[in-house]
Amino acid sequence: MSANWGKNITVSIFGESHGVALGINIGGFPSGFSVDLEKIKKDMARRAPGQSELTTSRKEPDEFEILSGFFEGKTTGSPLAIIIRNTNQRSKDYSVLKDVLRPGHADYSGKMRYSDNNDYRGSGHFSGRITAPLVFAGSLAKQLLESKGIFIGTHIKSIGNIEGRGLTLKEINNDLLKNLQNMDFPTLKDNNSELMKNAIVEAKSMEDSIGGVIEVAVNGVKAGIGNPFFDSIESRLSSMMFSVPAVKGIEFGAGFDIAKMLGSEANDEIYLENGEIKTETNNNGGIIGGISTGMPIVFRLAIKPPASIGKEQKTVNFVTKEETKLKVEGRHDPCIVPRAMVVVEAAVALTILDFLMEKKEL
Amino acid sequence: MSANWGKNITVSIFGESHGVALGINIGGFPSGFSVDLEKIKKDMARRAPGQSELTTSRKEPDEFEILSGFFEGKTTGSPLAIIIRNTNQRSKDYSVLKDVLRPGHADYSGKMRYSDNNDYRGSGHFSGRITAPLVFAGSLAKQLLESKGIFIGTHIKSIGNIEGRGLTLKEINNDLLKNLQNMDFPTLKDNNSELMKNAIVEAKSMEDSIGGVIEVAVNGVKAGIGNPFFDSIESRLSSMMFSVPAVKGIEFGAGFDIAKMLGSEANDEIYLENGEIKTETNNNGGIIGGISTGMPIVFRLAIKPPASIGKEQKTVNFVTKEETKLKVEGRHDPCIVPRAMVVVEAAVALTILDFLMEKKEL
Amino acid sequence: MSANWGKNITVSIFGESHGVALGINIGGFPSGFSVDLEKIKKDMARRAPGQSELTTSRKEPDEFEILSGFFEGKTTGSPLAIIIRNTNQRSKDYSVLKDVLRPGHADYSGKMRYSDNNDYRGSGHFSGRITAPLVFAGSLAKQLLESKGIFIGTHIKSIGNIEGRGLTLKEINNDLLKNLQNMDFPTLKDNNSELMKNAIVEAKSMEDSIGGVIEVAVNGVKAGIGNPFFDSIESRLSSMMFSVPAVKGIEFGAGFDIAKMLGSEANDEIYLENGEIKTETNNNGGIIGGISTGMPIVFRLAIKPPASIGKEQKTVNFVTKEETKLKVEGRHDPCIVPRAMVVVEAAVALTILDFLMEKKEL
Amino acid sequence: MSANWGKNITVSIFGESHGVALGINIGGFPSGFSVDLEKIKKDMARRAPGQSELTTSRKEPDEFEILSGFFEGKTTGSPLAIIIRNTNQRSKDYSVLKDVLRPGHADYSGKMRYSDNNDYRGSGHFSGRITAPLVFAGSLAKQLLESKGIFIGTHIKSIGNIEGRGLTLKEINNDLLKNLQNMDFPTLKDNNSELMKNAIVEAKSMEDSIGGVIEVAVNGVKAGIGNPFFDSIESRLSSMMFSVPAVKGIEFGAGFDIAKMLGSEANDEIYLENGEIKTETNNNGGIIGGISTGMPIVFRLAIKPPASIGKEQKTVNFVTKEETKLKVEGRHDPCIVPRAMVVVEAAVALTILDFLMEKKEL
Repeated sequence: MSANWGKNITVSIFGESHGVALGINIGGFPSGFSVDLEKIKKDMARRAPGQSELTTSRKEPDEFEILSGFFEGKTTGSPLAIIIRNTNQRSKDYSVLKDVLRPGHADYSGKMRYSDNNDYRGSGHFSGRITAPLVFAGSLAKQLLESKGIFIGTHIKSIGNIEGRGLTLKEINNDLLKNLQNMDFPTLKDNNSELMKNAIVEAKSMEDSIGGVIEVAVNGVKAGIGNPFFDSIESRLSSMMFSVPAVKGIEFGAGFDIAKMLGSEANDEIYLENGEIKTETNNNGGIIGGISTGMPIVFRLAIKPPASIGKEQKTVNFVTKEETKLKVEGRHDPCIVPRAMVVVEAAVALTILDFLMEKKEL
Repeated sequence: MSANWGKNITVSIFGESHGVALGINIGGFPSGFSVDLEKIKKDMARRAPGQSELTTSRKEPDEFEILSGFFEGKTTGSPLAIIIRNTNQRSKDYSVLKDVLRPGHADYSGKMRYSDNNDYRGSGHFSGRITAPLVFAGSLAKQLLESKGIFIGTHIKSIGNIEGRGLTLKEINNDLLKNLQNMDFPTLKDNNSELMKNAIVEAKSMEDSIGGVIEVAVNGVKAGIGNPFFDSIESRLSSMMFSVPAVKGIEFGAGFDIAKMLGSEANDEIYLENGEIKTETNNNGGIIGGISTGMPIVFRLAIKPPASIGKEQKTVNFVTKEETKLKVEGRHDPCIVPRAMVVVEAAVALTILDFLMEKKEL
Repeated sequence: MSANWGKNITVSIFGESHGVALGINIGGFPSGFSVDLEKIKKDMARRAPGQSELTTSRKEPDEFEILSGFFEGKTTGSPLAIIIRNTNQRSKDYSVLKDVLRPGHADYSGKMRYSDNNDYRGSGHFSGRITAPLVFAGSLAKQLLESKGIFIGTHIKSIGNIEGRGLTLKEINNDLLKNLQNMDFPTLKDNNSELMKNAIVEAKSMEDSIGGVIEVAVNGVKAGIGNPFFDSIESRLSSMMFSVPAVKGIEFGAGFDIAKMLGSEANDEIYLENGEIKTETNNNGGIIGGISTGMPIVFRLAIKPPASIGKEQKTVNFVTKEETKLKVEGRHDPCIVPRAMVVVEAAVALTILDFLMEKKEL
Repeated sequence: MSANWGKNITVSIFGESHGVALGINIGGFPSGFSVDLEKIKKDMARRAPGQSELTTSRKEPDEFEILSGFFEGKTTGSPLAIIIRNTNQRSKDYSVLKDVLRPGHADYSGKMRYSDNNDYRGSGHFSGRITAPLVFAGSLAKQLLESKGIFIGTHIKSIGNIEGRGLTLKEINNDLLKNLQNMDFPTLKDNNSELMKNAIVEAKSMEDSIGGVIEVAVNGVKAGIGNPFFDSIESRLSSMMFSVPAVKGIEFGAGFDIAKMLGSEANDEIYLENGEIKTETNNNGGIIGGISTGMPIVFRLAIKPPASIGKEQKTVNFVTKEETKLKVEGRHDPCIVPRAMVVVEAAVALTILDFLMEKKEL
């Protein structure tokens, strides 16, 4: 089941970092939608490596080839599949890693899961590279959502110990979210952007890596989308978010801070604005009882530092069962946050679209 | 789909707080398992209200009736269904709430989702009372897991601003986890237990409510369980956890703190202990690449303060579209954390069992 | 997974013939639908035994109790669960059958599947009695479909060697289909009704049983519902039909006879009728490429003779592994066709409703 | 959902007859299985057109490229994806068909389903060509099943009015089934093979087409596989079979003939053979209560004549809404039965493998 996701919109992914190609098959996408391929290419470029000193120097063009489901500039309604060929593989880099387990990587858990048959070059199917085709699918979904007035934005809330502020309820609007999509290093104004960048450069200079927190806002989802319990918006969104490599935590609205509040603080008091029902705060992050409240959907993701670092670490050889030490050579991302943001946008877009495709009544 | 969950083990839930009965149908449970019903009753009692001054004074015995799938003391392998009849309903309490939206509750989102046809008494199907049958199913799953050496424990890490410490890697063992299941107010030793209780009592005295953080540990899951991406352990566990009402955040291992770390700190260095591959830290919470590492699975949940409070709050009448004020009358839980712990255990047990039922090879 | 079915409308079933109760949980049904419970009771009575000399003399009132999801005469949109208590169990009849395998029954396959832990009284969970709650759900679905102009009818096409004619394309209309639902022994006019009844009575007199063929027509499904390949109408309908005990074959449109045709005969030629696109024949049974053509959906089901017969048969004792002989004592149905028809209607209604709930575009 | 299939083994398909490429993504396949690619190529060739005068003269080499999930000759356990590029497209043949509906094809239902956005060249995604990647997946599954002693065979039971006999219970064995896989025109000995071929040649000479019946046998499935009701073997097998284009009927064991039998004839009497429980007949086709009995699984499929014929037929122009006539030009299959057999084998193999992957107990 691991390869497939979704109920109304489905995706099926495949590929390894050093295999022939990665790809995705998108099922259930409505027919007749005119696609702006340039916008998708722009999103793919946001994820692609080698863009700045803040990311790996590896160059992967990530050019996609559409194989099906797309005809005369529009979706046909049939499965829409794309592939991205791997072109910049350096398999020789990895032969040493066949047996030595990289700390923080899925080497050990993967070997135990697949009886040591995983492709050991790069991270095989565990590679973050699998998110490239996901960005294609999500970027497509985003275009459809935007045509319905729904916008998704992400900003960097923190890098390492450099904390920025979160979005305030009042400032969330479509223009802000769109602007964030266009920024090289998307942060809120006066939000320690330079300090964050410095922290990344510093980690890189130490042959180390660094983590961060991404905040996400979705604007324009009407009240009444979602379900209680097993198909709550939080359930499906979190499930999808933890499919994105390096995510280790998610919190909606006030999140872990809500646990420190009294009910009278945490409850979002309700008022009327031009006849519309709104809340004065948004501690619930736009979701109560698993269902949208009409307020922006807001959540944050904890992103761990990339596991591949040049610093020496203690580890074990899986085959010889001996303790050893390892420096992971190669061109690594010192921080995955900047490249992860468009992946998160994509994953959110697919999830929200899947919810909107639920027909509640006949 | 909201009613159903699971792939190999399935559950289907139903019921409203003031309807005739709540229940659950469990499919795919292995046949021939001897069930200790007394242990299940004990778990049901841990969730039931009216146990102490820390919970609501409402009494609900939550007696279950097994309808199918159970014969001569054992599971038959066929769907195992139970119901719990509602006996302590006071529907008159709720008639005033037909149109006035309670802040923090799913009243507004629910009315928009179900075209105002939800049962407005109590919280209808949104009631936390739905977790009673879930505890039955999870308690059953827990017995099966324990027979395979897998134990689940939860403790209260914080209540409001009263913070306790988390579990250390070294102290996690089956005995500790079992002890936690037997405590009235499960906290780690010297962990501010009395201060936490006081905070709850104080919130109650103010006709207010308070939140907290629950930490969960699962011991005994071997390395190699789970999947990358869409069916990762984090994906399915978080999906299930957000099905539990009041959960607003989840973090695995070091969680949001991992975002502050360098890779050299976050990566769990690997060593050998009696020939077994282990890690010196567990910042990844026992899961890397969506797959178990053999280390304990550890995560924390943010639990929001109960939305029902006696304090006056601003709100809106859904029908007349007028602003108004509301005190939610009745017998409320000042803090749901103590009762939620066994619900969390149950939900975790079902999820882990579902993973163990995946056959990886022929 | 065996307990649960459906994508947009879901059902979860439970129960054994001699257990406490049978039931069903219906998820995803639209909210606010006013239900005519009397109509459902009438459908339940059509399935219930003891109605005539053509069925078993066992009396089971099959009274249902609604537990949830239904409030003030309408569906709430939340899971709608019912139970039917078993009241006429004679468990003593069955003790002899604990180990002796009844030919034609699931005794052997079931013991191998569930490690001999199935409830051996009656047929346990394999009992046709499970279809009682399914009729509740399907009857509810039928009401909703009828409010949208979609009608389902079934007639007896053959009993044993007594063959009747099938529905002609011209005669299918809503009135005919509704009339069939109201008949005690639904057959087309001048269609050997009395000979069919005699064949059943004769089988009964020989302590034997007899099979037959049911033809089904669904009128009013517009063109463009369904999907190619894995979610074709034929795929999902057949999957559901083979869930009905005793069904051993299904054929759509001309069915097995289409295999004898030339393409020029089998292809349904297309013409215009008052501007609407129609076909002159309906050899494809209203479905091409897995998608509805707007013509009536027509198919036939092969129903095997009930396995429980008084005649002596050769068999084996599962425990002693000895060959033996068996007469199945008790009150049996000589032919299940008459009682199965409303079950088939119900199962069809759920499937068609599930398809209609698919939202094709935003 | 249409693109994806399966529970434990999953496949996701894409492609159109005249698009860039077709493909399939296989998820959940066990890791470490050594694949014989030559055997898969042989199966692909059995499905490929242009093999003899009995099939279309179109040549499509159907060469596959493995993109992922396959490393050093073995499956890795990660999603295994392949693509097949379209090379012999003659799009100009089809431009006339943009608006004129071909009788028997999914042109009308497809246009209504996808708002007229389907790729009109060939049959777009409705093309039988999609079965090429399915054969890859099924051929892989077949290799794994064979390594576990499970063999699948198909033979031609009838072409048009030329009827052959079915398999007898006694003659079914692995050698027979393997031999059938190696025959150009797989029929049982002395089973009117030449008459069947003549019927195809004759249909072709008339610019017409012809249907037939395929019989399938699966040997080696142990008793106790499958489930009652919604996940019965019949349910899942039929669902998969109706995903194969041109299938209009399926019957298990005695099938529609069982409806003519008395219970004493239809029930398969049970006996012991070398201590093993067997039945003297196999009217239930190896499945009772949805679960395997250990006897061979036997069923038959009605295959309709190909819809594309050179003969003139009446039809309608979808856009101008005018009645017209149509000869479908091009190189057509006069009978799809010979090419469909390996597709059926493949689809059966995937379904049986999916069932075997269900873990019944811990």
